[in-house]
Amino acid sequence: MKPMRQPQQYEEIAEFLRQAIRSGQFEPGDPLPSEAELCERFTSSRGPVRQAMATLRSEGLISSGRGRRSIVLDASRTESFEAMISVTAWLTQLGYEPGQKTEWIARRPADATLAAALEIPEGDPVVSYHRVRFANGTPVMVERANFRLEPAGRLVLAFDTDSGSIHRHLMQQGVDFNNVTRTLLAVAATEEDAQYLGVEPGSPLQLMPMKVYDHSGTPLEYSYYLYRGDLLRLGMNTIRGNPSPLWVEIDL
Amino acid sequence: MKPMRQPQQYEEIAEFLRQAIRSGQFEPGDPLPSEAELCERFTSSRGPVRQAMATLRSEGLISSGRGRRSIVLDASRTESFEAMISVTAWLTQLGYEPGQKTEWIARRPADATLAAALEIPEGDPVVSYHRVRFANGTPVMVERANFRLEPAGRLVLAFDTDSGSIHRHLMQQGVDFNNVTRTLLAVAATEEDAQYLGVEPGSPLQLMPMKVYDHSGTPLEYSYYLYRGDLLRLGMNTIRGNPSPLWVEIDL
Repeated sequence: MKPMRQPQQYEEIAEFLRQAIRSGQFEPGDPLPSEAELCERFTSSRGPVRQAMATLRSEGLISSGRGRRSIVLDASRTESFEAMISVTAWLTQLGYEPGQKTEWIARRPADATLAAALEIPEGDPVVSYHRVRFANGTPVMVERANFRLEPAGRLVLAFDTDSGSIHRHLMQQGVDFNNVTRTLLAVAATEEDAQYLGVEPGSPLQLMPMKVYDHSGTPLEYSYYLYRGDLLRLGMNTIRGNPSPLWVEIDL
Repeated sequence: MKPMRQPQQYEEIAEFLRQAIRSGQFEPGDPLPSEAELCERFTSSRGPVRQAMATLRSEGLISSGRGRRSIVLDASRTESFEAMISVTAWLTQLGYEPGQKTEWIARRPADATLAAALEIPEGDPVVSYHRVRFANGTPVMVERANFRLEPAGRLVLAFDTDSGSIHRHLMQQGVDFNNVTRTLLAVAATEEDAQYLGVEPGSPLQLMPMKVYDHSGTPLEYSYYLYRGDLLRLGMNTIRGNPSPLWVEIDL
């Protein structure tokens, strides 16, 4: 079990401002407190305050300032790390009652695709499950998850996958989920997916392959999330001078 | 015409590191130079160096460090602001030959949707065009653009929309595009879109409504980009402790 790291001061300041924006304490168009005011409030030097502001700018929460006071921007919503990897946390944050139905869970040998994604030899054991996820009882996505046996897979096997958030459980058990790579593709629903999701075959879905690494760069999980296209909306706000972390590519 | 603002020192440092990562000078897994080395190279104090690192972390380009040296992460690609609003710049950056065919361009009265999006009275003039965009001759997206008459619309009307990047032209003419809000939805191709894009009706497409604001928060443009789902891939890398700027929502 690793000790939790202490958040750095700029992260505390950034989180304070993020919460103030999310809770509506600062509204779109409002000026942010000045650097001097933030330094005083957090007993901080200018460095961490500026780092916090740079973080919020790159998240699209505040304007660039350009010598003026930064203002709070519209469409001020960001994902937490937990909401990114835990569907339960995500739906709860959106105000929905999360639900799940496990189709199957298995320990099985990795095929070539999984072996490559998880960087293990083909045939090595992985732990996989398929779950349909519900928001207020409506099926909204299919979760096809695959874990390396160690450290996460073994814990998944011992967990009741119909009882709620697997990822929260794994993190509580000390699994070091540290960074996530996600891609996004629009696809047509297969017969099987259509049946799970209660849509017509061929309906547009959002397919999100997701790879989760630990701090040393070892892939612990490789999963496919498949969302109903008629329900899911993604969005992002970006400010000139702050490149977006998205990549948008075409395969000809 | 506004003067260009001078980039701040942290932005210069961030851009240097971004380019070094993109060009392969630093590869995934490589440690980044230390703070002390970066301070020396840029004749900078710690503040701007740390702000630059915070920016790259929130872009998913480097690891959090946690007391250790930050390392360069895999999937290290970010969008520039220009590539976000200019399809020509985006395709060029991807290494494709951009092309366009204007279906129509018009000055017309704003309907209720456009009036609300551009925050103008219904019936006020807007400038709109539809273009099919090509990568190496293959149709990849439909661009349905709408501008306030002032300042951008009038310049669009006077521009040959078959000649290349409208947004680059507008920025050169001093139009203050400052921040962008984009959403993303998976939709089925209509007959018209299918014909433009050379796909079957009902095929999955990515619909991206985009609103571009100037620095004071006035919406200058409200456009719909419609991409072939079988060609487009979006992706993103996020590190624990750095919330992603994406919002991911469900509408029940």
